[in-house]
Amino acid sequence: MAHNLKELRAELALANRMVANEGVIDAFGHVSVRHPDDPGRYFLSRSRAPELVTPDDFIEYDLDSHPIRDPGLGQYSERVIHGEIYKARPDVMSVCHHHCAAFMPLLATGADYVPVFHLGAVGGIKPPVWDQHDEFGDTNMLVIKPEEGASLARALGSHWMVLMKRHGVTVAGTSVKDCVFRCIYSARNAEYLVRALSLGGNIDSLTPGEAELAGSISVKTTGLTRNWEYWSMRVAKAGGVPAAKKPARPAAKPRKARKRR
Amino acid sequence: MAHNLKELRAELALANRMVANEGVIDAFGHVSVRHPDDPGRYFLSRSRAPELVTPDDFIEYDLDSHPIRDPGLGQYSERVIHGEIYKARPDVMSVCHHHCAAFMPLLATGADYVPVFHLGAVGGIKPPVWDQHDEFGDTNMLVIKPEEGASLARALGSHWMVLMKRHGVTVAGTSVKDCVFRCIYSARNAEYLVRALSLGGNIDSLTPGEAELAGSISVKTTGLTRNWEYWSMRVAKAGGVPAAKKPARPAAKPRKARKRR
Amino acid sequence: MAHNLKELRAELALANRMVANEGVIDAFGHVSVRHPDDPGRYFLSRSRAPELVTPDDFIEYDLDSHPIRDPGLGQYSERVIHGEIYKARPDVMSVCHHHCAAFMPLLATGADYVPVFHLGAVGGIKPPVWDQHDEFGDTNMLVIKPEEGASLARALGSHWMVLMKRHGVTVAGTSVKDCVFRCIYSARNAEYLVRALSLGGNIDSLTPGEAELAGSISVKTTGLTRNWEYWSMRVAKAGGVPAAKKPARPAAKPRKARKRR
Amino acid sequence: MAHNLKELRAELALANRMVANEGVIDAFGHVSVRHPDDPGRYFLSRSRAPELVTPDDFIEYDLDSHPIRDPGLGQYSERVIHGEIYKARPDVMSVCHHHCAAFMPLLATGADYVPVFHLGAVGGIKPPVWDQHDEFGDTNMLVIKPEEGASLARALGSHWMVLMKRHGVTVAGTSVKDCVFRCIYSARNAEYLVRALSLGGNIDSLTPGEAELAGSISVKTTGLTRNWEYWSMRVAKAGGVPAAKKPARPAAKPRKARKRR
Repeated sequence: MAHNLKELRAELALANRMVANEGVIDAFGHVSVRHPDDPGRYFLSRSRAPELVTPDDFIEYDLDSHPIRDPGLGQYSERVIHGEIYKARPDVMSVCHHHCAAFMPLLATGADYVPVFHLGAVGGIKPPVWDQHDEFGDTNMLVIKPEEGASLARALGSHWMVLMKRHGVTVAGTSVKDCVFRCIYSARNAEYLVRALSLGGNIDSLTPGEAELAGSISVKTTGLTRNWEYWSMRVAKAGGVPAAKKPARPAAKPRKARKRR
Repeated sequence: MAHNLKELRAELALANRMVANEGVIDAFGHVSVRHPDDPGRYFLSRSRAPELVTPDDFIEYDLDSHPIRDPGLGQYSERVIHGEIYKARPDVMSVCHHHCAAFMPLLATGADYVPVFHLGAVGGIKPPVWDQHDEFGDTNMLVIKPEEGASLARALGSHWMVLMKRHGVTVAGTSVKDCVFRCIYSARNAEYLVRALSLGGNIDSLTPGEAELAGSISVKTTGLTRNWEYWSMRVAKAGGVPAAKKPARPAAKPRKARKRR
Repeated sequence: MAHNLKELRAELALANRMVANEGVIDAFGHVSVRHPDDPGRYFLSRSRAPELVTPDDFIEYDLDSHPIRDPGLGQYSERVIHGEIYKARPDVMSVCHHHCAAFMPLLATGADYVPVFHLGAVGGIKPPVWDQHDEFGDTNMLVIKPEEGASLARALGSHWMVLMKRHGVTVAGTSVKDCVFRCIYSARNAEYLVRALSLGGNIDSLTPGEAELAGSISVKTTGLTRNWEYWSMRVAKAGGVPAAKKPARPAAKPRKARKRR
Repeated sequence: MAHNLKELRAELALANRMVANEGVIDAFGHVSVRHPDDPGRYFLSRSRAPELVTPDDFIEYDLDSHPIRDPGLGQYSERVIHGEIYKARPDVMSVCHHHCAAFMPLLATGADYVPVFHLGAVGGIKPPVWDQHDEFGDTNMLVIKPEEGASLARALGSHWMVLMKRHGVTVAGTSVKDCVFRCIYSARNAEYLVRALSLGGNIDSLTPGEAELAGSISVKTTGLTRNWEYWSMRVAKAGGVPAAKKPARPAAKPRKARKRR
């Protein structure tokens, strides 16, 4: 088990660097994974730019986003995004929150995300849009309070992507790899869509039938493996991921997640 | 002969990396070449991101896109694009399929590709547009079935480029170098065209006479050699192409291509 | 004290390279810092592209932008931008002047800067716009005369950013890090805003309440630390900052700033 | 003298790599210099991508664009652009022809080039536009015949930049450095202008008085030196320029330029 967690941490560090390296996130944004043996916990890096994250940087959280142990380290202020989605969606195993440039024109104008090529189907057709102002009025726009995270999770519903007006995007996946794939190809699609919208004409998006078929095929075929090898090579060219330095620590004994009130 | 095939594999690996390195393809997309001694066969990489392809990765196919030998490796699902075009167009010696970002706004809006500078003439004037939905209804949009590939080849007709609505582009050439040249300069032209369209005015494209003259001159002059040296240097800077590791294998004995039904 | 100045010079050299490395400035533009012990002085590099600036390149100026000692080196012609702002704004400890590409479409069309995501709040809502032509008529557009710098400082008023029509941008901060953060995130916001404007619809910017809350939180939290580590890593990848070669020189004895007439 | 020519060749090789490295030219395009001792001759590289040009690649031409000695090497087909401009404009010491992406939307729509920031003044206000079709009808659009080059030189007139519809741009300078400076900053201005035009509003360009003052100041001040150091550093990071391998050859004896009829 400790061995599997070691691999999981390595994969999660690579995933954080991948989405950064592919231009989806800069210093802000983060990718998490649910604990494979305890659905009531998840792993998320300490407060650090994703392109710098190492396998040693992950903190184990309960679903109320309280660290299982005192991390003695700075934590991401928006971690409730992860915890509240894991709470609401038992099928979700990985979450990414980002502020990708490609989405910003959509988030600033209210234009819908629609898939304009088959791989864009991983983001769905017109995924839900959430505006923190609707429920919480003027805030600093960070999703910090549990009720803010829970509101976002409700907006996500059964989708895999939710747009956050004047803020960013949150993506869910059935695995770290699925989540990364959805992040990168939805970002590519957003870029193509925005350029197409700038031409001023009508957008010819995928039909609902095409979107459903293309959305399911793209994470099942050899495409995922091919991309993972490709993105890994690109991270390696950019310097790679340091190996874990900490000795493998026995997994914390699973226990009931504390309820946050 | 084995020696020539060795060079061909090296050239094809370089070509795959070139179009990737120049931003025409990412993890998806692929460049193939027809067998120089057997017009009933072609070479295409195993399922792998083009930027990672090596001279050892090529699989030999018949024109029904069946591997001549069991490759024991993952294969591209869209290989019928290549086989069906080689079947329909004896003059075509190399094919590239890609999802280049520069074309996406055209494929999403239905705006025509027109050459806006002399080198853009390599893509023709208003090349044909194919929509898989027209003949096959809702699909996952991948060109996997032989009849889908054959339909695309019919749409290509006697042109050198066919646009695939909400999907990508397929380019043909009289040689690997010609195909690469057409891919890269049509992509540059698409980028310039889209930026020009975003200004909202009329587009002043090449006249038919200019397009014909410019389209033929640009692959005949020293320009092709100059570009090949340039793009090769850029691939070399990005890490280069590994040498073949497999010993030169005797070429498979040419035989009749099996008919696929 | 000499030790602190040594650290300050190292930080300022890093800051110059950071804003260059993040695409805010090219060969033109510069970042300065007020002398920590003498509010009547500031440090600015000799005339050199910011991406090349070293800790040894800084010249000490009084607030009339006269060098304290004969530098024997070429000086930036626009240094009065820094001096006049330090004169007018005792709370400002660092100033950056730049011509970032992201702002140019706003400066050429008169479109307002508005924050379209929370981090864009560091630039304010509709920050002031200054046109050198209004007060000085036809000039070479460089801010060289003290009265030109003073006019710009008046336009800045109590804001943290002022747009300069058909020229560039000047940003102020409470520290070097605050100034860099404001430069980079206002530039990102400008880029997103311009892309959103190109879609032709209405822009949904932050409410005044959101902008105030987001603008203050973003420089207080761990975000600043996280970004500094990230941008430093990126400068290091691009070659890093050379260490100071000059032996630590005793600080010049503080004295009254000479009045320029 | 041979020594000066050696330095000139080194500078010209660096200039070719600079404009390539800054994104003004790709595999096509070229920078030339007039012979410092014989106004009837100029130096231009053999047919090679500018990013690969070395000090050994230059061929000496007369103003009819005939090589002084048999080069035994491939030559650029468009060299008459250089020769005819040197013939028509004794004050021009360096010429660059390019197809920079930033200009393409202007060349495809007929939108005027206007300076939108002070450094853009190096390209002039509404510089002349030349269309090869006007005088020569359908061609392959390359400027190959002497009369085509002469027509372009007439269009340039007393300006420093001429736009070539559906083709590219030609820039002249009083020295290699002046020419490079004009190329790079006019390209930056074109990029900003196109983005501004895509917003759909009115463009607020420099006044004629500002353009004249800014256009003359920007090549006189320390700005040119500062940029040359910056662009040189960037070429060095990209691999640098190889030293000349050929032994210094005595300069060819100046003679009357042959008249081409």
